[in-house]
Amino acid sequence: MVQHYSAHVNASFAALADATRRGVLDQLARGDASITDLADKFEMTLTGMKKHDGVLELAGLVTTEKIGRVRTCRIGPSRLEREMAWIARYRQVWDARFEALDGVIDELKREEQARGRKQRK
Amino acid sequence: MVQHYSAHVNASFAALADATRRGVLDQLARGDASITDLADKFEMTLTGMKKHDGVLELAGLVTTEKIGRVRTCRIGPSRLEREMAWIARYRQVWDARFEALDGVIDELKREEQARGRKQRK
Repeated sequence: MVQHYSAHVNASFAALADATRRGVLDQLARGDASITDLADKFEMTLTGMKKHDGVLELAGLVTTEKIGRVRTCRIGPSRLEREMAWIARYRQVWDARFEALDGVIDELKREEQARGRKQRK
Repeated sequence: MVQHYSAHVNASFAALADATRRGVLDQLARGDASITDLADKFEMTLTGMKKHDGVLELAGLVTTEKIGRVRTCRIGPSRLEREMAWIARYRQVWDARFEALDGVIDELKREEQARGRKQRK
């Protein structure tokens, strides 16, 4: 079996697996912010926020630019396209699978009813 | 700032942050399988596959049932609805933000052209 490995998708989902990092993305989607602003907003040390920012940067979800002593964070370039596509496709297969199961159950019910009618005759 | 914490969303994204676990979900979406089958397919030890299965189960992405000596895995009950919604909403804000930026850039261009015309007069 061919195993599709995607380090980028791994990094993105890992970055999203933390409520603070999702909060940071929500915040940056509304406007750029410095690491200091973010640390304040999320009641976190600068070191802690830098770590979260590093994880988001590795996943391509945030870019930072240092001007003078201020490091400004903004969202992008990743728009989570591959991650969205993966989940969408999975849900599609999921739905198809359970529709098929529903079909089998309906079929069994019909057969049972047919048997019931035969026995009553 | 209210920080929306969701342990369940954390667990789901963490479960998806591994190519083998995504592969297992793809596989189970096509049909139920035993831990042994999955370990064989992904060329992994039983112990390794049990760990991956545990992470998927915690996230509600897989359920297992032990009948006799065979532990069968199937997908569900999570259809990744909240995770899909989170990404969809994020992409929406992302798009709106960059459309707004495009608007600002267009506005600046128009102003510059207007200034250029005035200077030529």
